[in-house]
Amino acid sequence: MIKEAIYHRPKNNFAYAYDEETLHIVLQTKKGDMDNVQLIYGDPYDWKNEKWQTETVTMSLTGSTSLYDYWFIAVNPTFRRMRYGFYCKDGDEECFVVEDGIFAHLPTDISHFFCFPYLNKVDVFQAPDWVKDTVWYQIFPERFANGDPSINPEESLPWASEAPTPTNFFGGDFQGVINNLDYLEDLGVNGIYFTPIFKAYSNHKYDTIDYMEIDPQFGDKETFRKLIQECHKRGIRVMLDAVFNHSGYYFPPFQDVLENQEQSGYKDWFHLWEFPVVTEPMPNYDTFAFVSSMPKLNTENQEVRDYLLEVARYWVEEFDIDGWRLDVANEVDHTFWRDFRQTVKEVKPEAYILGEIWHDSMPWLQGDQFDAVMNYPFTNAAIDFFAKSEMQATAFSHAINRVSHMYPQNVNEVAFNLLDSHDTPRILTLAKESLARVKLLYLFQLTFTGTPCIYYGDEIGMKGGEDPGCRACMEWETDKQDRDLFAFVQKLITLRKHNPLFGNKATFRFIQTTDEKGLIVYEKQTGVKRLIVMLNNSDSNQYISKELLKEGDTLEEISLPTQASSHQDTEREIVVPSLGWRIFELTE
Amino acid sequence: MIKEAIYHRPKNNFAYAYDEETLHIVLQTKKGDMDNVQLIYGDPYDWKNEKWQTETVTMSLTGSTSLYDYWFIAVNPTFRRMRYGFYCKDGDEECFVVEDGIFAHLPTDISHFFCFPYLNKVDVFQAPDWVKDTVWYQIFPERFANGDPSINPEESLPWASEAPTPTNFFGGDFQGVINNLDYLEDLGVNGIYFTPIFKAYSNHKYDTIDYMEIDPQFGDKETFRKLIQECHKRGIRVMLDAVFNHSGYYFPPFQDVLENQEQSGYKDWFHLWEFPVVTEPMPNYDTFAFVSSMPKLNTENQEVRDYLLEVARYWVEEFDIDGWRLDVANEVDHTFWRDFRQTVKEVKPEAYILGEIWHDSMPWLQGDQFDAVMNYPFTNAAIDFFAKSEMQATAFSHAINRVSHMYPQNVNEVAFNLLDSHDTPRILTLAKESLARVKLLYLFQLTFTGTPCIYYGDEIGMKGGEDPGCRACMEWETDKQDRDLFAFVQKLITLRKHNPLFGNKATFRFIQTTDEKGLIVYEKQTGVKRLIVMLNNSDSNQYISKELLKEGDTLEEISLPTQASSHQDTEREIVVPSLGWRIFELTE
Repeated sequence: MIKEAIYHRPKNNFAYAYDEETLHIVLQTKKGDMDNVQLIYGDPYDWKNEKWQTETVTMSLTGSTSLYDYWFIAVNPTFRRMRYGFYCKDGDEECFVVEDGIFAHLPTDISHFFCFPYLNKVDVFQAPDWVKDTVWYQIFPERFANGDPSINPEESLPWASEAPTPTNFFGGDFQGVINNLDYLEDLGVNGIYFTPIFKAYSNHKYDTIDYMEIDPQFGDKETFRKLIQECHKRGIRVMLDAVFNHSGYYFPPFQDVLENQEQSGYKDWFHLWEFPVVTEPMPNYDTFAFVSSMPKLNTENQEVRDYLLEVARYWVEEFDIDGWRLDVANEVDHTFWRDFRQTVKEVKPEAYILGEIWHDSMPWLQGDQFDAVMNYPFTNAAIDFFAKSEMQATAFSHAINRVSHMYPQNVNEVAFNLLDSHDTPRILTLAKESLARVKLLYLFQLTFTGTPCIYYGDEIGMKGGEDPGCRACMEWETDKQDRDLFAFVQKLITLRKHNPLFGNKATFRFIQTTDEKGLIVYEKQTGVKRLIVMLNNSDSNQYISKELLKEGDTLEEISLPTQASSHQDTEREIVVPSLGWRIFELTE
Repeated sequence: MIKEAIYHRPKNNFAYAYDEETLHIVLQTKKGDMDNVQLIYGDPYDWKNEKWQTETVTMSLTGSTSLYDYWFIAVNPTFRRMRYGFYCKDGDEECFVVEDGIFAHLPTDISHFFCFPYLNKVDVFQAPDWVKDTVWYQIFPERFANGDPSINPEESLPWASEAPTPTNFFGGDFQGVINNLDYLEDLGVNGIYFTPIFKAYSNHKYDTIDYMEIDPQFGDKETFRKLIQECHKRGIRVMLDAVFNHSGYYFPPFQDVLENQEQSGYKDWFHLWEFPVVTEPMPNYDTFAFVSSMPKLNTENQEVRDYLLEVARYWVEEFDIDGWRLDVANEVDHTFWRDFRQTVKEVKPEAYILGEIWHDSMPWLQGDQFDAVMNYPFTNAAIDFFAKSEMQATAFSHAINRVSHMYPQNVNEVAFNLLDSHDTPRILTLAKESLARVKLLYLFQLTFTGTPCIYYGDEIGMKGGEDPGCRACMEWETDKQDRDLFAFVQKLITLRKHNPLFGNKATFRFIQTTDEKGLIVYEKQTGVKRLIVMLNNSDSNQYISKELLKEGDTLEEISLPTQASSHQDTEREIVVPSLGWRIFELTE
């Protein structure tokens, strides 16, 4: 038993309020080290340590990584408060884990124990319920569809006539999106995430000029209002991109600083190092990365806060948008995000707040700031395993278990699970143009915990490398679209919508991973029903003993459009075709 | 090398902004496992992983517990942001620690690394500077001094004529405190923490009736104003006790609920389970512990929030108090405390906010809620070692190292280090009436990091067991006071005030602990100066080789009033008398 590997600390992913009555408790131990882990708990003001056995519950192993096992239990303390510790057993060895150490005997004094002092409802992490049932579609508006050529930027090229570059334009706009909402409805998505739409200089619009105006190349506010209304009519929610970390070069306050320097009334809107402020050869002010045309906004300045919070409020209140995606969210202060949440939720409690953070984001996901972050750790593992085969099956399960034990369960249920985006190569390109691998990616994404997002065009087999390659014009010529892939994604979305085993109501658990076969098997469970998903990430057919499914009373195979290769089960074994899948629904 | 013991996670005690330019980074490893630990870091947007050696700094071992070593480094990243990882070496074995795992080789992709995305000034934990130089004195106002018998509660007993009981009164009041400020000034304390002073039913006043009124047994608002002014004239700051978790039984809104039940306009001020609300045989509403006369306030209700925040504001703004101590702070919601901080700091940015939390309090000490908590883990260790000898020297150093590595350094510098309080037995009683042990306790407390607090009367040798025993009337008859102990404490306070080695500017580190000798030796350091403190917690004289002090260029012994036993150094050894001390100041 390696005592040093045991870890627990309350009020993060290890101990949190799942809802207004339930606490989730997790203990980390060294992988394979414990036979049995139990939670010992009681009311802080009615502590009976001599009879701890009566208040003990056995915890479940919910996942492992290469180093650790994670033990889980949900409890409902009567008075919404508890002191607690853990009992760990490994063969003949045992120990008691409490806040101030690991002991051979259970401490008698309550002050040693961990404490969850009170489950206050207002502190419970609560993301909007609808997000758990949403499948997103990410639109880069300049490149989705051109519905109104009259407002094309001057230098616009004919649609899809050239490869995307950092500076060219094709005239994508809101009318184009409106014209194609039937397409999105047919695909089955029920949320759109738009990259920035506010007045800006570039084609990507991350260099804002005016946060209160629609970029004229996309339409006007009335077209935008119509877009939102048309989306809502179809049950599609809309999320906008808030670029609050930095402004663009042509943002009037920054222009004022460049012009009036020390006399500018906006000099405290940025982080200026000295005067005169210069952009060349190196900016002498804080920027996004080292990009001189993206001066970092001083969100600690009250005027800037007031301005940005008004922006946050305005688009929700006036246009009824359903969410904000926050660009470079990790570099803006926590204090600002707390005010931001309060502002947005006051106007629309059901709005979704999604931060762009690529790393561990627990400090932003405590209930006071974001509802979710872009789940790039999920992305990286899925790409490395399915698209690139650079990760083995067991390592993939470890990576996924690490992510899902890094956050509370209620956070995971609304995690924004993307496979690619305008910031990465497209999945088909990452998968070296293997459509079978792309199908496995979608299969995993659309059966996993969280809220999945499809990057526009991926569903019909668009390719594209790093930015700007991944930002090509949407392919609207049906014969150039991969309709088989479309039908596959469409079917998966339908299943996720109608079969609770596919979505967030079911708990996820890996059952088996076989490195030499490139095989992963996992389960989704709700009550007496279980979904068993077998994914074969290798180039040859793989065989799984039918005993794996024996427990189920009734068994039904779920079919999805067209495997790459055929298969025929043997008497004793299920065949999972090369780069293919088998999905079974079991009912006890 | 036990990789599973390695732990790090940003944005808590392991990685935090110490000030507006400095990040502190800490890595936990298995005790004794590593020869060398290095931080590998760089700017997220200028990452040179192939040359990591050039951005590597060696970390220092700042403390150990029975299981872990803690490695520390302070860095000032040029652009206030960094990605980082760790290099660990144990003999021939080495590994690289990053966010998503522990690897044999340094990962090439920056996305693997830990991230401190941006040091935003507004997020830096900032407690008031004055607290670092404050020595507190805790007063239980009913029992400190009776200066105005005309306002005695009806049933008051003559001062100190009887033992304290849960219900008796002796008429302590504000005039009594004013009359004795010279005494406190003479002792040297420069902060008073008053347990509750607002209108309440009991002698302890934790069952508030009116948060906007002074309890008439203590005086009126004018006397209180005079008290504050007199304190401030003497450079003494004043902290009040805010009992916001629950009200008293006679709090008018609760009385209204009992009277009008479901028709009461105050029914949402509490957590009522059902109607009719009853107090007997068991309360059917949330309470503090299970005390029916202390109904828990519903701090999620806007009216309650507004009322309590107005209370918080009023006493600071109108009477210029310097701090709030928050009773049962851990059971009130975080959202309320964030608003509380904002309210208080708006009126007086230099106010000190101290939470009563007995367990690990990191979730309240991130800069958005409290400045400090009552440091009971420190208390428990000090009492177990010095007062009771129930803990050995090494275990004591482990307990203290655990506490000081549980929080950021800027948190530790204002930790409220108490030895006892109105909620515990007095130190002299805990030490089985050994004055020598009490002196060792004070010596440790007044040389340690944090802001120490003396419980009224301890400094003149008052005894008392658990509440109500610890709440006896202050002993004002000089011949019954232990003036030797008073002089000892007075001298220590003077040293802490005038010699920076005693206070928070110097860093603390254990040098040596010897279980069989009951001996601890520690160092405080500022630049070229070091204080070496040797404490002998055993009943016989102990000897320490003079080599321990050899490094110092100049050496000066610091003397404190009267050791219990005499001592005479030998040629090669320093004698630390039984239950005694030796303190040396060294300058390079």
